[in-house]
Amino acid sequence: MEGLSQKIYLELEEPTEEDNRSSWERIQDALREKFGRVIPSLEVLQMLYPCCEDSGWKVTVSLAYSEEGWKALRLEPGNTADCHYGYCADLGSTTVVMRLVDCRRGETLGEVSVNNRQIAWGADILTRIFYCKDHPEHLQELTKAARDSFLEAMEVLRRKTGIGPEACLCMTVAGNAAMMHFFYGLDPFCVFASPYALRATHFPAYTGRSLGIPIGGMVYSFPARANYLGGDIISGILASDLDRQEEIGVFLDIGTNGELVIGNRDFLLGGAGAAGPALEGGVVRTGMRAEEGAVSYVKLTDGEFHLTVIGGGAPRGICGSGIVDLLAELFLHGWVDIRGRFLPQASEKIQRREPEQELAVEYAPDLWFYQSDISEFIKTKAAAHTMVEYLMRQIGLTMDDVGEFHVAGAFGTYLNKESAVAVGLYPDIDRSRIVSEGNASLEGAMYWLLHRQAGQRMEEILGKMEYIQFGAVDDFLHLMIAAEALPHTDLSQYPTVEKKLRESYSSARSVHSTAQTV
Amino acid sequence: MEGLSQKIYLELEEPTEEDNRSSWERIQDALREKFGRVIPSLEVLQMLYPCCEDSGWKVTVSLAYSEEGWKALRLEPGNTADCHYGYCADLGSTTVVMRLVDCRRGETLGEVSVNNRQIAWGADILTRIFYCKDHPEHLQELTKAARDSFLEAMEVLRRKTGIGPEACLCMTVAGNAAMMHFFYGLDPFCVFASPYALRATHFPAYTGRSLGIPIGGMVYSFPARANYLGGDIISGILASDLDRQEEIGVFLDIGTNGELVIGNRDFLLGGAGAAGPALEGGVVRTGMRAEEGAVSYVKLTDGEFHLTVIGGGAPRGICGSGIVDLLAELFLHGWVDIRGRFLPQASEKIQRREPEQELAVEYAPDLWFYQSDISEFIKTKAAAHTMVEYLMRQIGLTMDDVGEFHVAGAFGTYLNKESAVAVGLYPDIDRSRIVSEGNASLEGAMYWLLHRQAGQRMEEILGKMEYIQFGAVDDFLHLMIAAEALPHTDLSQYPTVEKKLRESYSSARSVHSTAQTV
Repeated sequence: MEGLSQKIYLELEEPTEEDNRSSWERIQDALREKFGRVIPSLEVLQMLYPCCEDSGWKVTVSLAYSEEGWKALRLEPGNTADCHYGYCADLGSTTVVMRLVDCRRGETLGEVSVNNRQIAWGADILTRIFYCKDHPEHLQELTKAARDSFLEAMEVLRRKTGIGPEACLCMTVAGNAAMMHFFYGLDPFCVFASPYALRATHFPAYTGRSLGIPIGGMVYSFPARANYLGGDIISGILASDLDRQEEIGVFLDIGTNGELVIGNRDFLLGGAGAAGPALEGGVVRTGMRAEEGAVSYVKLTDGEFHLTVIGGGAPRGICGSGIVDLLAELFLHGWVDIRGRFLPQASEKIQRREPEQELAVEYAPDLWFYQSDISEFIKTKAAAHTMVEYLMRQIGLTMDDVGEFHVAGAFGTYLNKESAVAVGLYPDIDRSRIVSEGNASLEGAMYWLLHRQAGQRMEEILGKMEYIQFGAVDDFLHLMIAAEALPHTDLSQYPTVEKKLRESYSSARSVHSTAQTV
Repeated sequence: MEGLSQKIYLELEEPTEEDNRSSWERIQDALREKFGRVIPSLEVLQMLYPCCEDSGWKVTVSLAYSEEGWKALRLEPGNTADCHYGYCADLGSTTVVMRLVDCRRGETLGEVSVNNRQIAWGADILTRIFYCKDHPEHLQELTKAARDSFLEAMEVLRRKTGIGPEACLCMTVAGNAAMMHFFYGLDPFCVFASPYALRATHFPAYTGRSLGIPIGGMVYSFPARANYLGGDIISGILASDLDRQEEIGVFLDIGTNGELVIGNRDFLLGGAGAAGPALEGGVVRTGMRAEEGAVSYVKLTDGEFHLTVIGGGAPRGICGSGIVDLLAELFLHGWVDIRGRFLPQASEKIQRREPEQELAVEYAPDLWFYQSDISEFIKTKAAAHTMVEYLMRQIGLTMDDVGEFHVAGAFGTYLNKESAVAVGLYPDIDRSRIVSEGNASLEGAMYWLLHRQAGQRMEEILGKMEYIQFGAVDDFLHLMIAAEALPHTDLSQYPTVEKKLRESYSSARSVHSTAQTV
């Protein structure tokens, strides 16, 4: 593998009076052809004796790549090249996902997801940022919390695999700009405040030690393009290969914020804006994360809900994919109209609820989905739709010009494509062109760990990417209002949804006429 | 100055929504033309806020050079480019000499000399090496002692100048291979044991912090050519400009060991061997370092010694320059013969001394210079002479082919050239061609601090330097025996000494004949 770290086994000649090159020179000479000049850490120099002698001059040297060249960071007696591990991580504001990677084989040995410990200082990233503003000691707490989240993930991985951080060399980290500022201990207020100039977009490779991460090698993080278009998106682009395709593609990541990149190998246009946490179940009253007890899949047949519950037990709430399914079914069966308003006459399951007499549907025993939940969701999906529409207009394209529509984020992984199209979250294109990338930023981080050339590629991505901050765009609000419908006020953009509605309408009429006949 | 460190004052544009490059990008962009890509330390990134805002985007950035490129290591508000300090040091096994340098003006602000604290583990470097062998915890003590010697010197310099290490950026260190191994915590046994393969000849630039030196920048040390031809000699060559001259020159450093380099801009031939500490007053019974109470200058007139004593008080012993003077005078006045044997009939000051009835001369009240002292000295100077002679023969040259004869070391600084020639320590060439370089390794270290291009130059020096270890040479002993005379068994090599002897002999005879007449 052409990874960021290398473990090289060397069988060196023992020194003689005729050839009394220094111990390090022997290693350097053996490495020169492939790695050029290698800078040894002080620890490596200190390990030369007795490591070289004790092993009969058969040693394994661990190297880590940086833009300045290769660094030698560890020396071990004998051949340990087979034990070559590293980490990649997605540092999300809510969740930290980490993989332990066998860097020799390019395989995942384990993957864990832990809560970002910063949640203790606020679930909302803005709360954390205000907490730190002009309080460097508070910032240190948040930096430590991010680090401790990594350490926790490493310990869980150790329990799963027996391999701990001391056996690992390098780590790649993808995260948005705010998370990176927190992690490196830079005040992140700049991320959310005009003129949106970050403290740093790029972070050099620093040793794990200097960051309090007990790995032997370096920590690498993805650079940001802009305040709202962070390293997690650059990593995702890498994973999706958007920047290498001839066909134009769309890369969409919707979480707390929405981030979007359109382009191909010739151009890239990126944009970002607040999307709202509705899609992650955040603002839905019975919403929850995709964990045990969450309704993840919904089907409406003959006026009854058929649910899939994660873990198979009784439903406790509904996660993102369930929400999209539920809303699509409600809409396609005429239980809500194009504006997302409940039509109470459609079912007895739709009722007014105390205390505010708000309409809601009982999708599972005593679990209700409210009118206000629908409104929030529609706003979110309208924002996502509008981001795509706006950027497409900027470059004079339509969905017909697009090859693949990549959806990033855990959310996209479990989403029913038909439902997502029906509610207008995804465009109404050939379903095979809608590609769920899963946790694309984690995939990109793993890719970088195993392919150091990605460093050059991300600079090219940054170099050619134009960036638009949607908040700063005037037309955006107008376009968004038009998108605040199911699937859209302009139904002609959604021909397959229109067709389903027509079928559903005629079938409903036929049911109705049967009823009338009886 | 084109030094290893730079302090650059920048007046940056404040970010706007139109130009919202990151804080670091602004600095990097301002530095790019002169310094290329600059790698910021984590601390610099963390200092960006509030340093940039508070100073109205007028900041001074401190840079340190490394082979990998420039690193930014400090950020200060406002213009502090005028306060730009660094250290250079000669890390000797007995003495650590350090200078505080104004890197902007290229001036010495202070110089101090402190004992190397490692002396507590043995005055002799071999004692220290055996103490450490296979005891890493002992090695750590010696490493700490070297570091503490630096810290002590820095504190003395602070008292003298008001400028402490926290105000300094970089430090260059010249020392022999053993001292460098101690300083960096590498087992130095290899320096003195066959096959004389060092652990490392080169040490990368490490941050002061990683070495426990509280400066803001990096520590640079001179590379070694071989076990006995260390960075102190490479530094000395740099100071003497030997490697840039058209004329062939000789560079000789005699201390505990003798190190020698002959060459010019086209070739360099280096050699080293044990010389013995006689020249530093080590084995002379009343020998002492050149400090208060030491006889530093001797003249013999009408059978009486005329002494210069350091500090002007009563003599307590004799230092190197005094020994050379004394022996030259004894020889030129016929008190010792060509073999260095006392001729008791020459003066009543020459007497047999208890307990072993050894001949000695009373050079000051109750201070005696013994036959065995002379023998030790002659062995040492013979070794030094032979090193030069041997290397000259290797390349088929004689002293007539040599332009300048550079003598390094504090010893050479105070030596009377005529005396040194008379005893055969220096060659009998035009006195203006004998150049005392003073503490050449300290001078070279200061040169590097102020001229980073020296890094390239020392690699060229190492690249073209052939190395001979005299201990391993067969003819050496034969040549040395021939040199064990005053000034040499072959008097024709010393025409001015021969002339003086003839004059002295005829004047003695005239005195004698006058006495007979009376």
